[in-house]
Amino acid sequence: MTLLIDNIGELVTNVVGAGDGGPLGIRRDAALLIEEGRVAWVGAAADAPAADRRIDARGAAALPGFVDSHAHLVFAGDRAAEFVARMAGQPYTGGGIRTTVAATRAATDGQLRRTVGRLRAEALRQGTTTIEIKSGYGLNVAEEARALRIAREFTDETTFLGAHVVPVEYTDRPDDYVGLICGPMLAAARPHARWIDVFCERGAFDVDHARAILACGQAAGLGVRVHANQLGPGPGVQLGVELGAASVDHCTHLSDADVDALADAPTVATLLPGAEFSTRSPYPEARRLLDAGVTVALATDCNPGSSYTSSMSFCIALAVREMGMTPAEAVWAATAGGARALRRDDIGVLRPGARADLILLDAPSHLHLAYRPGVPLVTHVLHNGVPQCQP
Amino acid sequence: MTLLIDNIGELVTNVVGAGDGGPLGIRRDAALLIEEGRVAWVGAAADAPAADRRIDARGAAALPGFVDSHAHLVFAGDRAAEFVARMAGQPYTGGGIRTTVAATRAATDGQLRRTVGRLRAEALRQGTTTIEIKSGYGLNVAEEARALRIAREFTDETTFLGAHVVPVEYTDRPDDYVGLICGPMLAAARPHARWIDVFCERGAFDVDHARAILACGQAAGLGVRVHANQLGPGPGVQLGVELGAASVDHCTHLSDADVDALADAPTVATLLPGAEFSTRSPYPEARRLLDAGVTVALATDCNPGSSYTSSMSFCIALAVREMGMTPAEAVWAATAGGARALRRDDIGVLRPGARADLILLDAPSHLHLAYRPGVPLVTHVLHNGVPQCQP
Ligand SMILES: [Zn+2]
Ligand SMILES: [Zn+2]
Repeated sequence: MTLLIDNIGELVTNVVGAGDGGPLGIRRDAALLIEEGRVAWVGAAADAPAADRRIDARGAAALPGFVDSHAHLVFAGDRAAEFVARMAGQPYTGGGIRTTVAATRAATDGQLRRTVGRLRAEALRQGTTTIEIKSGYGLNVAEEARALRIAREFTDETTFLGAHVVPVEYTDRPDDYVGLICGPMLAAARPHARWIDVFCERGAFDVDHARAILACGQAAGLGVRVHANQLGPGPGVQLGVELGAASVDHCTHLSDADVDALADAPTVATLLPGAEFSTRSPYPEARRLLDAGVTVALATDCNPGSSYTSSMSFCIALAVREMGMTPAEAVWAATAGGARALRRDDIGVLRPGARADLILLDAPSHLHLAYRPGVPLVTHVLHNGVPQCQP
Repeated sequence: MTLLIDNIGELVTNVVGAGDGGPLGIRRDAALLIEEGRVAWVGAAADAPAADRRIDARGAAALPGFVDSHAHLVFAGDRAAEFVARMAGQPYTGGGIRTTVAATRAATDGQLRRTVGRLRAEALRQGTTTIEIKSGYGLNVAEEARALRIAREFTDETTFLGAHVVPVEYTDRPDDYVGLICGPMLAAARPHARWIDVFCERGAFDVDHARAILACGQAAGLGVRVHANQLGPGPGVQLGVELGAASVDHCTHLSDADVDALADAPTVATLLPGAEFSTRSPYPEARRLLDAGVTVALATDCNPGSSYTSSMSFCIALAVREMGMTPAEAVWAATAGGARALRRDDIGVLRPGARADLILLDAPSHLHLAYRPGVPLVTHVLHNGVPQCQP
């Protein structure tokens, strides 16, 4: 069973040196053959092979499905009222996380599963073919394990974020909470998680606690990611580099030493402009990072407190408007960049052997993702080669 | 044939004093009956009458369809390359309009009709049940008449914008172009237009030319709207007030005298934040206008040069993030405000007798339009009481 996507006006492959020779590896008037969920062939439409089925792209742009490497989908309740208060002038401190923890603990498995499923489907309709999902609203052994177990039903990219904030029960004894995380909580989380993450920030976890937590996760076989330098300058980015993190996320407040550390490391800087949009904060300096040679990814940070968007297209538009990224850099960061942030080479790229995760736009070029902000341009989503329900 | 929308969790009626008594006239747990394309009844779900058909909103929010009172949809070509150059640092001067004029003149009727139809459908899917469409990329008698004739196939709210820029043929003799507009061009446009509009700005039309053009349009029975104070301070807003314009649009650079004039007038200030987003310009000061008692509308300015979005939800999110509007003020401005800007009292409101133009959201509250930026939340669109194709 083969499927040909034919008459692609502009195919973003993200294969270095392919097509136009630019970073997106753009081919014009292209076609792409899918077999057994993988890309089997990429070439000129004029040379397209026969196939069992065919989708006519009619000159539209096609690109790898978005890779959203940072999302918090396992929660209950919403925080619309907190959002309204913040827009009226109240600052974002991260304190509202505890509101969501209380609501999440009170929810049934079915309620949580429906919320994750609804948001996963919403993201998929908008072109996100891979999504990372974190725990972090449970903050005790049973609840963190439950969140990861449910997340695991929807994605392979699950992240144990028991170190999201110190729960109220441990406010006076954070060392004990770190002990809990590295002991029974990690043991319960481990079977369901691929990654470990810490919110390393004033008011959450300091650098010593963060290092201890990430090290024990790493020793248990989990990959490292860090919430770093979101609300102010701090040690998170350099800690991530020190530990060989796949990604340090947010990176809103960076010193020159932070940028230098990232430039010399395989660690990706994942920028989450939806958070700055929804907390009315200054945006991270993507241009500075790119000019220093840092690998940049874009992700949504989808969560009910600080960034309740699931739209990677929206993040691309913000990256171009607010962060000095070119449309090409932003599209790369939302696809191949996300794949790097998850240490994956089978997604975020369209070459023979890669997963057939791709999207078609109601537009002739990837440029329209920034040029047409807010417009749902994704018309077709193929995940593992399978056309998804049309949006 | 009656249709009941039942189990509406939050119904925004925009009826002053209704429901919760706030400006949105919100009713909880409501239902709405439609008959012959009009709202026939609004009340508590518990009191809902029988009907021939029924849509179960399942607790979702419902609101009047968006009224987009400012759009330029009759054009050919795109200006993605100009957008990319601008994002790389080139300023927006409005000069690119002439690029679109050349492409539009070269297009067939069928090409223009397909573009307008595609964008109208895209807007409708996103909840825009009324849209204003301007000419302004023809700039000669035959082309302006053609643009309005095609626009009129898609909306009643057509606007003659022969005074968009002075075409290159008249660069040395703008007086002659004003004469052409007020003479044969107006005569040809008049049968297809409801409104007349002028781009009153340095580099386009000065205040004397603008006054002359609007006055001749008014004498021919057209209502007045003005592109005013977008790129810098200027006389456009006060000219609009002087002439009793339904709306002055953009209002990005306002003096205290401009705000005072608007506060005492029935003229609406229509803000177009998509343009500031896509030209990386400072946003208009909505808070200042609202605090002065000015009626504010939001619209997309959808056009290929400076704001190629069709998303009213996106404009609402920008208004809250960037312009100090509350979510309630932004939703009102995008519905009832747009209706005021078009001097319509049958749309933008949900009360018995109004047109049954309404939308349902995948959300429990109108707040989510700002709280969930970039996410296509509109699940159902009813236009004249008729459910449209699902998005
Ligand atoms: Zn996060
Ligand atoms: Zn305009």
